[in-house]
Amino acid sequence: MKPKIGIIGGGAIGLFFAARLSLYADVTVFVRRTEQQVRLNAEGIKLGTDTYSVRSEVTGEQSFRHQDLLFVTVKSYQLAGLKAQLETFPKETPLAFLTNGIGHIEWLKELSAETILLGITSHGVVRRSDREVESSGSGETTLGIWCGSFDEGLKEYLTTLPDFPVSFSANIFKEIYRKLLINTAINPLTALLNVPNGSLLTNKEFHGLLLEVVREANRVLQVENGIEVVEEICRNTAFNWSSMAVDLLHKRKTEIDAIVLPVLKMLEEKELSAERLTMLYQLIKGKENENAKLDD
Amino acid sequence: MKPKIGIIGGGAIGLFFAARLSLYADVTVFVRRTEQQVRLNAEGIKLGTDTYSVRSEVTGEQSFRHQDLLFVTVKSYQLAGLKAQLETFPKETPLAFLTNGIGHIEWLKELSAETILLGITSHGVVRRSDREVESSGSGETTLGIWCGSFDEGLKEYLTTLPDFPVSFSANIFKEIYRKLLINTAINPLTALLNVPNGSLLTNKEFHGLLLEVVREANRVLQVENGIEVVEEICRNTAFNWSSMAVDLLHKRKTEIDAIVLPVLKMLEEKELSAERLTMLYQLIKGKENENAKLDD
Repeated sequence: MKPKIGIIGGGAIGLFFAARLSLYADVTVFVRRTEQQVRLNAEGIKLGTDTYSVRSEVTGEQSFRHQDLLFVTVKSYQLAGLKAQLETFPKETPLAFLTNGIGHIEWLKELSAETILLGITSHGVVRRSDREVESSGSGETTLGIWCGSFDEGLKEYLTTLPDFPVSFSANIFKEIYRKLLINTAINPLTALLNVPNGSLLTNKEFHGLLLEVVREANRVLQVENGIEVVEEICRNTAFNWSSMAVDLLHKRKTEIDAIVLPVLKMLEEKELSAERLTMLYQLIKGKENENAKLDD
Repeated sequence: MKPKIGIIGGGAIGLFFAARLSLYADVTVFVRRTEQQVRLNAEGIKLGTDTYSVRSEVTGEQSFRHQDLLFVTVKSYQLAGLKAQLETFPKETPLAFLTNGIGHIEWLKELSAETILLGITSHGVVRRSDREVESSGSGETTLGIWCGSFDEGLKEYLTTLPDFPVSFSANIFKEIYRKLLINTAINPLTALLNVPNGSLLTNKEFHGLLLEVVREANRVLQVENGIEVVEEICRNTAFNWSSMAVDLLHKRKTEIDAIVLPVLKMLEEKELSAERLTMLYQLIKGKENENAKLDD
């Protein structure tokens, strides 16, 4: 029997996971808007040139349908508003958070779920519409148990899916910090400068700044070979635009508060200064303010 | 008899000075391109809705025509290329440099001119074409004698022109440092963020950054009430775009090396750090590099 996997969030990663997992699992996508729910139920998810059938429900509507696992893929700043919905699922339902950054981790303690997993995923996905996504770079997913215990059968199942690499890490925080360093270094710089990731290597001045920002952040994140790690990502995604660059370009709220702010707080706690990261934070927050004004 | 005033540079300030002074003086505008020279001679300068007749010559062509005063209005980074031309004028011809920043001042020692004036002007001028300019804010001009002596009659003449306020300052460096602080604080921030000057007051994050940048720069520039001075300019020019913002938007070279680099050097000489100003300099230089790449 196929496991029942729920996915909260109809954004790029949510739709991508739903489409790929729909081949192996009984997938339900929980979305906010009825309009998207109706389209997903009627037309399925289009990933590249293929279409995948999924079930979709609206998060606002109470659902008692049992789920073996519930992935949470919403943006970090949408999490707080989702708490009441998460509590409508039985506390036995394992929750796996794929949310960027680490701003939400303290908040997870308030949930009644018995088993909580933290995960990071490196799939590059672009959302074209409420039901269309495109892969912009293959990736993988790493999960780790934050609290509770996870069914061994389901773990075995998840880690052996063809063409959808999932692994479990005994030290998920190491992976999370690695991704946090990458996002902290690449996202605000590319967003502020409105350049693709590769420019942080090819432009001498930007590269100098990248190194300085990595050094500042890595004083607390302590990622091994931090500079090489970040440079490799810039190289492998040279023509991609970071999510923060895209968000700022489209005058949307960014995830700066989930990515850079926690790093600044960690540095502050250790009484370490971080002038460049502080300034990048101020610049991006200021740009967000300007964009918010335009919406008035 | 009207004095003979030469103006080197057919940019916004050069054309504006030529148009306004043409009512009171025998004006010659020295430009680089024959195309612009021909248009200026044939059609005159259009300032707002009025047209002003001027004589124009090409800087490359040797001119022995006597000038009572020669204003130099070219961009700071164009000055070095102009040295040979400046030396074609008799060494008795007083030169008045209206160039932004202070990067060129050491270089002036290499000129054979006997009398050199330094000046700053606060006229807001936008150039629309090779012969059209528009005023975007009334201003005034302050001159000071850097070396040599200046004819008292001409000084009296210049300082009493109707509707074109010119004054002489015994301490022109005080005025230059004041303008340098203003440009150092407003230009790179507005250029990087692509916002008009007023946003540096109305956006809380940007305002915080502005104050920090002013504080860093003013540790060497020592402008009295520096923050109030800069804030007043932002207020009075709230809807204007700084020259550096316009240059970067049009993917042109900026005057960052004439404005911010000398301030950074002064800070370095006094072993004072300036993280924010250093980072702004790197960001703007990096943006210039990106723009240069696009031209390839």
